[in-house]
Amino acid sequence: MSRHQLELLIEKADTAINQEDFDTLIDIYSEDAVLVIKSGMNAVGKDQIKKAFEAIAAHFEHSLEVNQAGMKILETEDTALVLAKTLVSANNQPVVERKATYVFKKDKGKGWLCVIDNSYGHDLLEENT
Amino acid sequence: MSRHQLELLIEKADTAINQEDFDTLIDIYSEDAVLVIKSGMNAVGKDQIKKAFEAIAAHFEHSLEVNQAGMKILETEDTALVLAKTLVSANNQPVVERKATYVFKKDKGKGWLCVIDNSYGHDLLEENT
Repeated sequence: MSRHQLELLIEKADTAINQEDFDTLIDIYSEDAVLVIKSGMNAVGKDQIKKAFEAIAAHFEHSLEVNQAGMKILETEDTALVLAKTLVSANNQPVVERKATYVFKKDKGKGWLCVIDNSYGHDLLEENT
Repeated sequence: MSRHQLELLIEKADTAINQEDFDTLIDIYSEDAVLVIKSGMNAVGKDQIKKAFEAIAAHFEHSLEVNQAGMKILETEDTALVLAKTLVSANNQPVVERKATYVFKKDKGKGWLCVIDNSYGHDLLEENT
């Protein structure tokens, strides 16, 4: 079975995060993309998202490792919801499994771009109650 | 704090489901919307979605009751991800809490429309493994 474009794109993003290649990483986001840094704190737009990933890399002592352990893609013509089991590990923390939710939009010129990146999934609801 | 347009729209959808007012319900979906009926089975487009809700209503012996017990909205310019705790009950089953994921797109004329309706959230991943 051939792999979905979005699987390959998310793999590319994970590799870019793990290699701290933030210029490649930021190409995957739309201009007005939203990245959830933690509950109640979002980065909006490419500049803020790039700075957030730089800060996250430092926080994890440049040992962050992100991988997907399962994925489900729901897709309409130009919008897709990706539900993923995302494994996050680093030297200074044990492996954490997150139930991530990503929304992608198909740009006519650039193809799929990430518009909403919420690696916490429904945990955002738990932390707010 | 004033309520978000999408909260009001989802409340309208829940009321329409509970009253079996499927014409009102279907207005909330885009032409190419995807509704997850169960793992591996999607309804695509207004006609299929309407038929699916009619079948769901019959399955629950016309006693289905859907309510939201918590909601988080992540939003870019014209796309929004809604993470919700959705309570589903009926005469023939106990109350079930689902971690639902909904994607909405802002249409220039019609405002917010639901493009992806996945009331199962990450449970889709569990059932596929």
